[in-house]
Amino acid sequence: MESSNGKPPQGKEEGMAAAAEGSIGGYESLHRLLESNLSPELFKEASRLLLGLNCARPLEAISLPGATTALAEAHDFDVQAFRFNADKEQMRQPRIVRVGLVQNSIAVPTTCHFADQKKAIMEKVKLIIDAAGASGVNVLCLQEAWTMPFAFCTREKRWCEFAEPVDGESTQFLQDLAQKYNMVIVSPILERDINHGEIIWNTVVVIGNNGNIIGIHRKNHIPRVGDFNESTYYMEGNTGHPVFETAYGKIAVNICYGRHHPLNWLAFGLNGAEIVFNPSATVGELSEPMWPVEARNAAIANSYFVGSINRVGTEVFPNAFTSGDGKPQHADFGHFYGSSHFSAPDASCTPSLSRYRDGLMISDMDLNLCRQIKDKWAFRMTARYDMYANLLSEYMKPDYKPQVISDPLINKRKA
Amino acid sequence: MESSNGKPPQGKEEGMAAAAEGSIGGYESLHRLLESNLSPELFKEASRLLLGLNCARPLEAISLPGATTALAEAHDFDVQAFRFNADKEQMRQPRIVRVGLVQNSIAVPTTCHFADQKKAIMEKVKLIIDAAGASGVNVLCLQEAWTMPFAFCTREKRWCEFAEPVDGESTQFLQDLAQKYNMVIVSPILERDINHGEIIWNTVVVIGNNGNIIGIHRKNHIPRVGDFNESTYYMEGNTGHPVFETAYGKIAVNICYGRHHPLNWLAFGLNGAEIVFNPSATVGELSEPMWPVEARNAAIANSYFVGSINRVGTEVFPNAFTSGDGKPQHADFGHFYGSSHFSAPDASCTPSLSRYRDGLMISDMDLNLCRQIKDKWAFRMTARYDMYANLLSEYMKPDYKPQVISDPLINKRKA
Repeated sequence: MESSNGKPPQGKEEGMAAAAEGSIGGYESLHRLLESNLSPELFKEASRLLLGLNCARPLEAISLPGATTALAEAHDFDVQAFRFNADKEQMRQPRIVRVGLVQNSIAVPTTCHFADQKKAIMEKVKLIIDAAGASGVNVLCLQEAWTMPFAFCTREKRWCEFAEPVDGESTQFLQDLAQKYNMVIVSPILERDINHGEIIWNTVVVIGNNGNIIGIHRKNHIPRVGDFNESTYYMEGNTGHPVFETAYGKIAVNICYGRHHPLNWLAFGLNGAEIVFNPSATVGELSEPMWPVEARNAAIANSYFVGSINRVGTEVFPNAFTSGDGKPQHADFGHFYGSSHFSAPDASCTPSLSRYRDGLMISDMDLNLCRQIKDKWAFRMTARYDMYANLLSEYMKPDYKPQVISDPLINKRKA
Repeated sequence: MESSNGKPPQGKEEGMAAAAEGSIGGYESLHRLLESNLSPELFKEASRLLLGLNCARPLEAISLPGATTALAEAHDFDVQAFRFNADKEQMRQPRIVRVGLVQNSIAVPTTCHFADQKKAIMEKVKLIIDAAGASGVNVLCLQEAWTMPFAFCTREKRWCEFAEPVDGESTQFLQDLAQKYNMVIVSPILERDINHGEIIWNTVVVIGNNGNIIGIHRKNHIPRVGDFNESTYYMEGNTGHPVFETAYGKIAVNICYGRHHPLNWLAFGLNGAEIVFNPSATVGELSEPMWPVEARNAAIANSYFVGSINRVGTEVFPNAFTSGDGKPQHADFGHFYGSSHFSAPDASCTPSLSRYRDGLMISDMDLNLCRQIKDKWAFRMTARYDMYANLLSEYMKPDYKPQVISDPLINKRKA
């Protein structure tokens, strides 16, 4: 499924996933790069540090059924699976949940009819959902705005046609699969809010394992950076920080740019989340240095699991656009670098999925680890939230004076 | 200054720095391990990802004066120096500051007379401060409770003898050096609060470049984990989140365990900090997986520089103690793994100092980068602090009800 030197497979479809990606080389993941080039002993050590495995619980690879690996081989998507362990408790049974993350490129060029683009994406994602179902995944999360290319870079409003009501086509499609596989499915879509003037939201629909819609959440923080022109299309969400109590644990969704906001992560934690998904669409030059940092920090700070998802590939649009950086117009947003992975509350994480190919990341996680880490580290008890509630209330006042202590001798001597 | 295979130097003083350290091997840093074992080309790529250098500004090594490197060689401490660059602006001149971090082991066994222990530490730290002075460092931060062994693991109250008033011996010692080198010095000590019943605090004294005391800050969050029995000795700080306006920029100090609290980092940012130091004392088995994550996340989320410091070596105490883990009594706290480093608001960071030896990390940083990143990413403008002020106020109420949406069919089908 991958070449031995850690480089991505050849034969990308023309115009959909450009090979050139600037300064980053062509390997599938840092983990695989090191695995291919270090001695087994050194790789083990590097891996221990990089994945935060300096603890009593090593990360174990899970062997998956043939039906899953056959689908992955036939359709060239990356599949990886790992187990996070927890301590045995005397008063609670383990609560082991199998969780999956899906990353994918678009399926046909963006010049195709919108209906054909959507249909082709749904067909390819169905194969990955089938693979997850064959492995008994309990909770599965798809990527941000999974039914469409991430066209917000263009600022063209015609892409709003991809928006759907909460109970629209893609939700119905997933409700059938949720019921078939007894699986909770988290579906991030572009929402058209029929009951409020047909406005647009960036929304996630949470579908229960009986195929019912449990509820929705709307993206809280909308980016104003690079070509992420999403603020042209939709406003900040109005759904607070809901946690969804499902048959397989308490889950929440921090959509994309919300991962840069520690308070957003915190709020889902305060409401009791045990797994927080971060379905994203983000590109290499801008955010790749942050990608391995923010989700792990959130898992540590809030004592829950995080599932990070990024779409993959380069999407080329029909009309060229500029990027506010003085460079010539161009027709793509840059390379979405995939690299979906899980982070755990004990500071460990899995390796990442491919930077180039579609993928399914599976982890078994004992949700008991969340409370075990809360008891061990006591972050919530030592957090002094009252102090910060007061500070933020003061800070919101237009006449807020920062707490600054100035050196009275600051100008005495030439610095 | 280091062996070619990335392993630590031999010949540690007996009883002060035990060699055995469990599952982690004997290399000085992950960066050096990879440098010694990857081809230059692959090392460059791995390094780019690990240090977050996927941006227009590469990290450059700085060449230091002979006086600095001679001191480092003569006294066997690690010295590294790097430059973070920023874009040129039209309306502001660059504001380049040279910042230093000091990590050190204790100097004589903990069985020695307390006065001798303190004197020996001050003598060895003076050599590192001299090296920083010779390099023209503008702002220097020492490690947490730098005048003493980190004896709180023992729960023995006799170590409180190391506490000093804010204007005590160690402050006076540093005031002279601050004036001599025209250097701001940040000095974390165990404080005895003479005017409030001689109580104990974990405090940082900020000394201006004219040798004056600018002010203090007291540790906001006190750990309750492992052998960090600090809550036996002192309470949560009462100084808020001050930012110190010095001749070389606005600095703040997040002491040790405060780094696990994103709100603590946030508050210093809201008050305008451009550099936040995190003087720490932390051991391998417990926190090493978190160490490369939390400071970088804080630098990213708050658009400021972070200087992370951890003491180094293994401190063996006169009386054995147990650790609440069912294991036999022992007389040491584990290995303090050094690894001091800088993180920048653009998500890049420096390599780390040695995991085994004393060290001085120097960075030149253009503080203009902070505002440039604020403008680019707009995290503060998109943060919706009003929403979180309300949430935290509600959360503090004893009858707070988490925002939970339960699947009504949760028990319909066996999960």
